[in-house]
Amino acid sequence: MRYTRLFGKTSREVPRDAELPSHRYLVKGGFIDQLMVGSWTLLPLGWRVVNRINNIIREEMDKTGASEMLMPLMHPKDVWNKTGRWNDPGVREIMYQFKDKRGREFCLSFTHEEVVMDLVGKHISSYKDLPVKVYHFSTKFRNEPRARGGIIRAREFLMKDLYSVHTSEKDLMAYYEEVKQAYLRIFSRLDMPVRVVEAGGGVFTEKHTHEFQLIVPTGEDTVFYCDECLWGQNKEIFGGREGSRCPECKEGRVVSANAIEVGNIFPLGQKYAQMMGVTFVDKDGERKIPWFGSYGIGTGRVMGAIVECCHDSKGIIWPASVTPYDVHLLSLSGGESVAERIYCAAEESGLEVLYDDRDGSPGVKLADADLIGIPVRVIVSAKSIAAGGVEVSRRSGGKAEIVSVEKLAGKIKELYSEKLKAKS
Amino acid sequence: MRYTRLFGKTSREVPRDAELPSHRYLVKGGFIDQLMVGSWTLLPLGWRVVNRINNIIREEMDKTGASEMLMPLMHPKDVWNKTGRWNDPGVREIMYQFKDKRGREFCLSFTHEEVVMDLVGKHISSYKDLPVKVYHFSTKFRNEPRARGGIIRAREFLMKDLYSVHTSEKDLMAYYEEVKQAYLRIFSRLDMPVRVVEAGGGVFTEKHTHEFQLIVPTGEDTVFYCDECLWGQNKEIFGGREGSRCPECKEGRVVSANAIEVGNIFPLGQKYAQMMGVTFVDKDGERKIPWFGSYGIGTGRVMGAIVECCHDSKGIIWPASVTPYDVHLLSLSGGESVAERIYCAAEESGLEVLYDDRDGSPGVKLADADLIGIPVRVIVSAKSIAAGGVEVSRRSGGKAEIVSVEKLAGKIKELYSEKLKAKS
Repeated sequence: MRYTRLFGKTSREVPRDAELPSHRYLVKGGFIDQLMVGSWTLLPLGWRVVNRINNIIREEMDKTGASEMLMPLMHPKDVWNKTGRWNDPGVREIMYQFKDKRGREFCLSFTHEEVVMDLVGKHISSYKDLPVKVYHFSTKFRNEPRARGGIIRAREFLMKDLYSVHTSEKDLMAYYEEVKQAYLRIFSRLDMPVRVVEAGGGVFTEKHTHEFQLIVPTGEDTVFYCDECLWGQNKEIFGGREGSRCPECKEGRVVSANAIEVGNIFPLGQKYAQMMGVTFVDKDGERKIPWFGSYGIGTGRVMGAIVECCHDSKGIIWPASVTPYDVHLLSLSGGESVAERIYCAAEESGLEVLYDDRDGSPGVKLADADLIGIPVRVIVSAKSIAAGGVEVSRRSGGKAEIVSVEKLAGKIKELYSEKLKAKS
Repeated sequence: MRYTRLFGKTSREVPRDAELPSHRYLVKGGFIDQLMVGSWTLLPLGWRVVNRINNIIREEMDKTGASEMLMPLMHPKDVWNKTGRWNDPGVREIMYQFKDKRGREFCLSFTHEEVVMDLVGKHISSYKDLPVKVYHFSTKFRNEPRARGGIIRAREFLMKDLYSVHTSEKDLMAYYEEVKQAYLRIFSRLDMPVRVVEAGGGVFTEKHTHEFQLIVPTGEDTVFYCDECLWGQNKEIFGGREGSRCPECKEGRVVSANAIEVGNIFPLGQKYAQMMGVTFVDKDGERKIPWFGSYGIGTGRVMGAIVECCHDSKGIIWPASVTPYDVHLLSLSGGESVAERIYCAAEESGLEVLYDDRDGSPGVKLADADLIGIPVRVIVSAKSIAAGGVEVSRRSGGKAEIVSVEKLAGKIKELYSEKLKAKS
């Protein structure tokens, strides 16, 4: 992509209310644009990142045997009435409810448990129809009183939500564990150091659930975890005090940290199916109530959270797995025709290149490349040509290297395979 | 995919109000499920078809130099007020408008002209920033009084909408023509025989626009066109009578037909930019108003429209380009272990196979395969094995053929390359 043709350029203005680095850098870098408080357009650069995040999630969901589909966003009141959540004060606080002109009542998708259970109820009758494992990427609407922080806490946002329905608690919990592992693989592929912590169920369930919390100083949540083992709890349920001995391994100490919740999983049990009258006939001929789980990752928020942990004072440093482009190609004075040739060849080879083809000062181009944060940078200038080719460097730092034009493609491949190796 | 594991099986029940073949077959085949009137879940099979449609559209949009992004679905009143459409009676009739608990007014995305123009206004200042060509796949909400016919006329539906902004009318109209050609390529790749007809602008513009109309007997629209040349108009603007001489070529005769509108393009001119105060500085240093176009394809509706033109009395016959799976593999009595082997090998080779692994009567399996409509069918039975392999046939008809297991992959490739050749 030629930068002159990209919609959504860098900007020098910092949004007034931007406290978080992800808010500042994603707006200044041309990744997102605010329509109103809590509501963001994903500009082409931002959409590319979210797409890559979604594809990683999709691969890991499919590995668990789940199937992708798409459920509606506007829901009739009667479906939400069956579980009593239409009138639940906690839900009403953040769910958009409204009437059409004929007085029919609807809400916007705050989550999809009721809608998916209604659907599953129509399609299962026997134990042979179970388990069901379905997910979608879709929009959620929550009238979040604390909307702030760019896309970390939005009122309209993209979420991957997976739902599973099982014949027994044992089967549910086995799959719950499988999804937990899939989530850990996802966050590892995204270079996000997350902790799994126990949490309450909020408006979803009375059981304990699990949150995937990214430990970063700018996180709004507080989590407590063991400095030796994997034990952890969020602030709502942690009853002890910092520095005490870990209740799990009895060896480590409980420490606390700020964190951003990037995923959560809920073993919802039989409550939803029971209230909605969903049953199946088991092997023994008896009519039984199925077991239900739900599993979410906010994918726009994940983009923001990645920036919270992957940036420096100049801008973003994207992990190789979600970078919007593989290479940022900059032509500086005297390098124009060679850069043009490299760009055309790269496009043909399938390498994804953001090509800064502007007439502009080197200072502006270099600062923009730092801000946008593509991991590999290639600079072509009269100076680099005189030195034998182009200058290749990493956004994360380290020495720049002169590489001949002929060896450039191989060099880029090498850099990416190192990065990917380091991650797996 | 093993059919026993697929969520959304075939059903013998016909929806009570189903008048259209697409409504009947998509519901019975397990492609879609109704949440409420005008609102549908795309089940895994249906989502696969829509995804393939979307990918074809995406490729053709990208070829025109457009970039994908994603805009919000909930819009603030003030943006829609700038063009006066918030209070336009025609718009209010079908737009969902509501207040949140603090009394702020919002609407759901009926279309995105106002939101995209607001966005573009923030990001352009000079002629160097133009043209802008951006699109997204997103949900539209229209309180359609005539909601019926399955997903052909829904209240919540998926749409690809492209918007372009230009320095001059000439540049807009050149791109408008380019998009028209891209649309024709899309519908040709989808095996849809469409006619381009002139139409009025509805609530969008006072200018003439163009509709892409699929000619099918079950279509709700009426179009008039020349039986010799490409001239055509829709019912709203056609002033002549059937059988008269074509006003364009003066040779052919005007005929009429039922049709389904599957796409439309609008040369919106300067109206939106003017009302919303969006300008740019041109080469000559003068501040000018940009030219605007908008271009839509309803992608869920396209799935329905394809079924309207691609079915027989037994079910759907998917075009090769959008079939949910490449091959429908059926194991009948005595063929189980060979079918299992073929399925595992195909999965590894990347071929997408729907494998009917049920214990069930051959009659049910064959009827389901006819209903689901995957173009290539492979039957494995004791009989086919005795005859030398497996039975390969096309959903569209013609003689079945016995092919050895070793030559099966080659045979499938051959059938698909014939189909694809026939289409381009």
